[in-house]
Amino acid sequence: MSEFPTLYTTTAVNEDGLTGQAYVPDGLKVAVASPLQPTPGTNPEQLLGLALSTCLNATLEAIEKEHQQPHQSRVVTTVKMARDQYGYQFFVDAAVTIPEVDQPTAQYWLTIAEQRCPVAKLLGDSTSVTIHLAD
Amino acid sequence: MSEFPTLYTTTAVNEDGLTGQAYVPDGLKVAVASPLQPTPGTNPEQLLGLALSTCLNATLEAIEKEHQQPHQSRVVTTVKMARDQYGYQFFVDAAVTIPEVDQPTAQYWLTIAEQRCPVAKLLGDSTSVTIHLAD
Repeated sequence: MSEFPTLYTTTAVNEDGLTGQAYVPDGLKVAVASPLQPTPGTNPEQLLGLALSTCLNATLEAIEKEHQQPHQSRVVTTVKMARDQYGYQFFVDAAVTIPEVDQPTAQYWLTIAEQRCPVAKLLGDSTSVTIHLAD
Repeated sequence: MSEFPTLYTTTAVNEDGLTGQAYVPDGLKVAVASPLQPTPGTNPEQLLGLALSTCLNATLEAIEKEHQQPHQSRVVTTVKMARDQYGYQFFVDAAVTIPEVDQPTAQYWLTIAEQRCPVAKLLGDSTSVTIHLAD
């Protein structure tokens, strides 16, 4: 599957469906619920947004460190959900702030981060996903 | 962005980077940490796996309901992480169980679910992602 050895393996389970619990065996357990119902709980929109924000910002933090900069970057991912021809679709927008450098440098670091961050690699080619510097 | 109106919007923030906290404003907060360090916390691998397992199993639950079947489906997503030419890469494998129907019916329902589930739509075209019936 890869010329590179596996460094880490984890498993995430959903048995309950839309409402109930999803879990990592011996790890995180989260209550899940429909985003269209008042039942409290997280949902795939939030979990996907947290995955992208965390992966991309951890990558930016590594780039800051390579440039002897203190960590100041921030990623805010907005996920919108709409119906689709079949089922539903998500629109994902990640807005990135790197306040300690000028705009061209920030854009360059973000371009590098997108080439390194595994979640950005999985999502970034979709026309429903945008990753950009915040205004 | 879509001919369909937005039904739901949510935001997911990471400020801390690899280790600390990621959060949904007024919602879920999770401790995050490197999967390669002993610090407790979840990580993008688990969050992405929980997003896919929950989205796909919620979609299968809806299909079960359309066929007047009690909900019995289950999705177990395994995420492996390895280095890549640049940075890291994920390999995502979702194993689906639909115990109440025969294998051809289960395969048909899974094919329909992949066409409806927004997370499967975002990830499914990647060569690093497989979605299949469990053995």
